[in-house]
Amino acid sequence: MMDRVTLGEITMSRIVYGMWRLGDDDNTSAGHVQAKVEACLAQGITTMDQADIYGGYGAEAMFGAALKAAPGLRDQIEIVTKCDVVAPVGKYADKRVAHYDTSAGHILASVDSSLKNMNIGVIDLLLIHRPDPLMDHVDTGQCLDALVASGKVRAVGTSNFRPWDWNLLQSAMTTKLATNQIEASVLHNAPFTNGDVAFHQQRGQPIMAWSPLAGGVLFGEKGTDVRVVLERIGAAYGVGADAVAVAWLLRHPARFLPVMGTNNLNRIKGLSGALKVTLDQQDWYEIYTAALGHGVP
Amino acid sequence: MMDRVTLGEITMSRIVYGMWRLGDDDNTSAGHVQAKVEACLAQGITTMDQADIYGGYGAEAMFGAALKAAPGLRDQIEIVTKCDVVAPVGKYADKRVAHYDTSAGHILASVDSSLKNMNIGVIDLLLIHRPDPLMDHVDTGQCLDALVASGKVRAVGTSNFRPWDWNLLQSAMTTKLATNQIEASVLHNAPFTNGDVAFHQQRGQPIMAWSPLAGGVLFGEKGTDVRVVLERIGAAYGVGADAVAVAWLLRHPARFLPVMGTNNLNRIKGLSGALKVTLDQQDWYEIYTAALGHGVP
Amino acid sequence: MMDRVTLGEITMSRIVYGMWRLGDDDNTSAGHVQAKVEACLAQGITTMDQADIYGGYGAEAMFGAALKAAPGLRDQIEIVTKCDVVAPVGKYADKRVAHYDTSAGHILASVDSSLKNMNIGVIDLLLIHRPDPLMDHVDTGQCLDALVASGKVRAVGTSNFRPWDWNLLQSAMTTKLATNQIEASVLHNAPFTNGDVAFHQQRGQPIMAWSPLAGGVLFGEKGTDVRVVLERIGAAYGVGADAVAVAWLLRHPARFLPVMGTNNLNRIKGLSGALKVTLDQQDWYEIYTAALGHGVP
Repeated sequence: MMDRVTLGEITMSRIVYGMWRLGDDDNTSAGHVQAKVEACLAQGITTMDQADIYGGYGAEAMFGAALKAAPGLRDQIEIVTKCDVVAPVGKYADKRVAHYDTSAGHILASVDSSLKNMNIGVIDLLLIHRPDPLMDHVDTGQCLDALVASGKVRAVGTSNFRPWDWNLLQSAMTTKLATNQIEASVLHNAPFTNGDVAFHQQRGQPIMAWSPLAGGVLFGEKGTDVRVVLERIGAAYGVGADAVAVAWLLRHPARFLPVMGTNNLNRIKGLSGALKVTLDQQDWYEIYTAALGHGVP
Repeated sequence: MMDRVTLGEITMSRIVYGMWRLGDDDNTSAGHVQAKVEACLAQGITTMDQADIYGGYGAEAMFGAALKAAPGLRDQIEIVTKCDVVAPVGKYADKRVAHYDTSAGHILASVDSSLKNMNIGVIDLLLIHRPDPLMDHVDTGQCLDALVASGKVRAVGTSNFRPWDWNLLQSAMTTKLATNQIEASVLHNAPFTNGDVAFHQQRGQPIMAWSPLAGGVLFGEKGTDVRVVLERIGAAYGVGADAVAVAWLLRHPARFLPVMGTNNLNRIKGLSGALKVTLDQQDWYEIYTAALGHGVP
Repeated sequence: MMDRVTLGEITMSRIVYGMWRLGDDDNTSAGHVQAKVEACLAQGITTMDQADIYGGYGAEAMFGAALKAAPGLRDQIEIVTKCDVVAPVGKYADKRVAHYDTSAGHILASVDSSLKNMNIGVIDLLLIHRPDPLMDHVDTGQCLDALVASGKVRAVGTSNFRPWDWNLLQSAMTTKLATNQIEASVLHNAPFTNGDVAFHQQRGQPIMAWSPLAGGVLFGEKGTDVRVVLERIGAAYGVGADAVAVAWLLRHPARFLPVMGTNNLNRIKGLSGALKVTLDQQDWYEIYTAALGHGVP
């Protein structure tokens, strides 16, 4: 049984299925998306990670078609989605420049659009996708509070926020921000020493991790040194380097929720492989120092 | 009518006239300085930004001569000045090294000197000019509190402080620091993401911005890409790139007070041109991403 | 009489004798170590800085032999030691990788080992040697609290912690962390502006400084510009560049406790030379700007 993590009002599965490439699949039919979600559920992966912008503002609707076709699915899962990135594609093709929009007007419209796209009545967790250097924190914060009060959203959080961005937004809210989804992996390990992880760990806030496999870098030239260590450790458990890289995050006491995304049904069936791996401290540091390229001082 | 901004005990005009080059003018007569100030007042620019060190410790006296010659001027304006930079020129020509002095003795002497130089009875806002790595925060903080209590200074603040410098000094004071004057502009935009702006925005403290035109870089080779965008936007309002660059700061919810300095009387008459410009989010991001040299992720 | 500094429950001498090279001496006999300690005591240097790892996990025992041979010594001194660095040498030769271990189990075992090695009943100050990116702050914090409660350790602190590391650990403790031992010197001066010194200064926590002579760099090619200034100032006091470099730290209001380590008995006798030197602000800035390589702005 997969661990579940409580974030304020909601609980999520320890491993999250990421849908940012849903639109890249050759088969984007409702039935195929449903098969992916069911492959997740079979492992206890109940949390689905979306964003308005995924698939050029199209991935939510693909997911929504599956939810409509299989009405029993919605109640078995938690749905995360995001807003504030406005790029000149899809419904925003007429925009002049990619930008972030954290105005109440934009967020409210984006939430309504996400609900409609996904054929759902409530978003379990809404994240502000990117820190907006032009954010009016009072406007944004009050809007997020109002969304929770309205029942359209059960919990709210952020993505890619640094501690000061989080403090600024939180200062204008009564709802507690539930989580921050940041890039974190063996190869993107600066957050483990620059205060970003420490900030949330101190406050007891689980951290969602995007690109837990470093966006594939782990499997290229640059990832060789680390991959060798990951593979050696994985061999003892009968899993691959990818599972060990995820286990490296799971081992951390801050409680990471890795967001794993793949369109390959067989790989989806193996997403929980990381849970078979229990790293000891030395394993963790062998992987870490291989990634640093030098030992710790 | 120009916006006014409240900073604790005082109010200032949204645009501030900076006198750091007063001594560079061919004409430093009382009458000419008075003409500059009156050109500001005609637009609602009532706040004058000085520092003991401007003009090699000479600019305050030039300003003071104008205030003496035109006794009605003082009550129409707010006077900001600064202290703690000790450079081996002018009255400090005998010093061995440029340094910062935040000792109570130095600050008190500097304030008395500034009052005398400018022929005034009170400084509206006194800023510590640079963070002093040797600052004894208790000594400095108690001195600033005492200056406010004495009536020689109506409000106190800092300049070029990072959040930790501000917290250190504020921790030893009962008076609330009113503002931080930092370098901020389209081209010097790191403060918008590194937490410096977020820090003051969260605390409701307006930020004074020096070099809002990036010290002229905007008008050289390196500023070309941004200038093209600024000029295009400005054309719609009948203003130049400089006005749009200032409008870019004014658009931010943290409430920036740009400090504009020029000795050219015609340019002074145009300083409030930025107020004619209302940037929308996309304008702001077009300018921002031109300055970054790449789009936002 | 040498200044003494209070850190919560304990007091320490302003200058601390560092034993990290005790094992590098040709003579590591109990008698010779005793002679070193007595040379310190003769100057009022009563605080001895150790770590489990010094001398490849051997330096504590060398010190312990001296304490056993001269039973009167223990009560005249304060003993600082550290734990959490596990390197594959000495008793840890079987470890696979150098790492940090801040688990309660490791810390408790390390403290018992340190007590036994040094033939003492209590450690005056125990420091976590390096921030552990895998730290479970609740486990570590409760362990440190328990150690103080048990009487095995009189005070606890950290080493090489950044402000966020400190906040994380402190948040899980009832005991107040007493100090942070960081690298700080004329040449390693970033902590004076990056918030690390400001953090502890604001909280009234004295800072222990390791490598106050920049690990010898001051006396090589790269240290020439600074050394010239240090020597010029030292000449007026009849002391060397090293004493002035230490005086530069002592001059700072944050209250630095420099940790001085040398095996040369004559040099030990001169360790308090820095106390003869009183730097004025300009001296301090002449040294600082020589180290920066440019004047302050």
